Amino acid sequence: MATCTVPQVVPSPAEDAAALLKAFQGWGTDEQAVIAILAHRDAAQRKRITLKYEEMYNESLMQRLKSELSGDFERAMCHWILDPVERQAVMANAATKCILEEYPVVIEIACANSTAELVAVKEAYHALYKCSLEEDVAAATTGNLRSLLLALVSTYRYDGDDVNMGLARSEAKIIHEAVRNGAADHEELIRIVGTRSKAQLNATFGCFKDEHSSSITKALPRGTDPTGYLRALRTAVRCIADSNKYFAKVLRNATCESGTDEDSLTRVVVMHAEKDMKGISSAFRRRSSVTLEQAIAKETSGDYRSFLMALLGS
Amino acid sequence: MATCTVPQVVPSPAEDAAALLKAFQGWGTDEQAVIAILAHRDAAQRKRITLKYEEMYNESLMQRLKSELSGDFERAMCHWILDPVERQAVMANAATKCILEEYPVVIEIACANSTAELVAVKEAYHALYKCSLEEDVAAATTGNLRSLLLALVSTYRYDGDDVNMGLARSEAKIIHEAVRNGAADHEELIRIVGTRSKAQLNATFGCFKDEHSSSITKALPRGTDPTGYLRALRTAVRCIADSNKYFAKVLRNATCESGTDEDSLTRVVVMHAEKDMKGISSAFRRRSSVTLEQAIAKETSGDYRSFLMALLGS
Repeated sequence: MATCTVPQVVPSPAEDAAALLKAFQGWGTDEQAVIAILAHRDAAQRKRITLKYEEMYNESLMQRLKSELSGDFERAMCHWILDPVERQAVMANAATKCILEEYPVVIEIACANSTAELVAVKEAYHALYKCSLEEDVAAATTGNLRSLLLALVSTYRYDGDDVNMGLARSEAKIIHEAVRNGAADHEELIRIVGTRSKAQLNATFGCFKDEHSSSITKALPRGTDPTGYLRALRTAVRCIADSNKYFAKVLRNATCESGTDEDSLTRVVVMHAEKDMKGISSAFRRRSSVTLEQAIAKETSGDYRSFLMALLGS
Repeated sequence: MATCTVPQVVPSPAEDAAALLKAFQGWGTDEQAVIAILAHRDAAQRKRITLKYEEMYNESLMQRLKSELSGDFERAMCHWILDPVERQAVMANAATKCILEEYPVVIEIACANSTAELVAVKEAYHALYKCSLEEDVAAATTGNLRSLLLALVSTYRYDGDDVNMGLARSEAKIIHEAVRNGAADHEELIRIVGTRSKAQLNATFGCFKDEHSSSITKALPRGTDPTGYLRALRTAVRCIADSNKYFAKVLRNATCESGTDEDSLTRVVVMHAEKDMKGISSAFRRRSSVTLEQAIAKETSGDYRSFLMALLGS
């Protein structure tokens, strides 16, 4: 469930556009007014405001926001006003440019969306970039990392709940063999993670844990991982197994005391605030002494903090 | 363009259902009456007749056809009355059961459909089999054959006409390297064939031909191919390069004097009669001394021949 809220009575797009222009004008931008409007409109409403603003003032709202705001607040707001499907296409494209650092973005889009949502993102990618997400991921990677990421973004997974327990047991064995041998021969492992339904994979992961008293992610070898493949595999397994728990961990790492990771923080909050942030927030609370809002408030400041807090519904 | 025809005035589904029941009743089935009705109704009309027949007579038209007809005619008619998208899902599923012989079916569905059509087939596959085409293809194959087939059925190809000629030249070089080295290291080749748009691939195939005075399919090593990978690669390249020419060749092989291949003949005619059979027929004529109708009429007989001829519009 979403955390961001929309008022019971919503002004018309023309009224919102006028209020935004007013917030931009004069000495300094009224950032709080911008947040008060845009953080409390759903995706369809934001789209209508964007179109109306351009129609009324003959300038792009996105461009105006870029010139009026700055830093993490600007980046977060500019992602927020995009259509959710387009936003993911834009984020995936940016991630393919520095895939060794940004592979989690690609994995999250591939694994946390439903099958139909992933197809919609890939369709938006075609429209925006005149090529496919698949070819950009494939061209940016090699070896096992390519095989894994390409399988994850390509596959049209079965979305149902049907589970074959015999298959889960036999594939848990195959995964155990692969894990024991390091990352040398992971073809079968990638085939399983890349094609089976999430329900089937969760049964397989469960069989693995029952049999070996350890999760797959813990059983994978630690230490050197120059290609990033093992880290990507851990990310994918965690994101498929329990996306709320996975995103809660991303947020925990992003708000830890050794330094804030604003990019990850922005990404998760903006992408999930109107989707499944309540579940992520609960998962965060279960493993932390403070609430998600408290953790984020402590590590951020100014308009950026106000905006994230508004998206979190506090 | 389609070759099968629909009369200007079409009877109601109830009239067609009644006429079909009449054709089934009495001493022996009136196969010509069945052909006269069903070969001249489009997919939506056939669906309505199927539903109406079941409603009126409380039996499945498909089951009744199976009990009334026989041999190649029965198989062709039972495929014909299926919804075109479902039919492809059914055919793909059957092909995964004996993939070493039937891989062309999987490749045709993956490569001759548009991106949106392929997604529709994969959606129908989910609904029918409670799993994905990807996992069935992956579980049935290994090695390079798996990598290739899985890439082809998974990918969400860009459908546009945009072509990057620099990329085409550099990827033609990569393909040439791979072809020269046999099938040992085809990871890059499979990446290119599996992810690039058809327009881009045709430019790449053209660059290869200009540079090496030979098509990729001819340059690939002949001789032993125990895994079937090289044959599958040739099939995919030909199907992507020119699907009309590819299907014309399938039909030429299926009707050659050394023996008729009814399964391939039925598949291509039934799957393409209401889609792009005119183009396939023209491509056939360019490489043959007889027309497609003449070639098929010579190699088939009885009701099966009458049915195929009706679908071909003669």
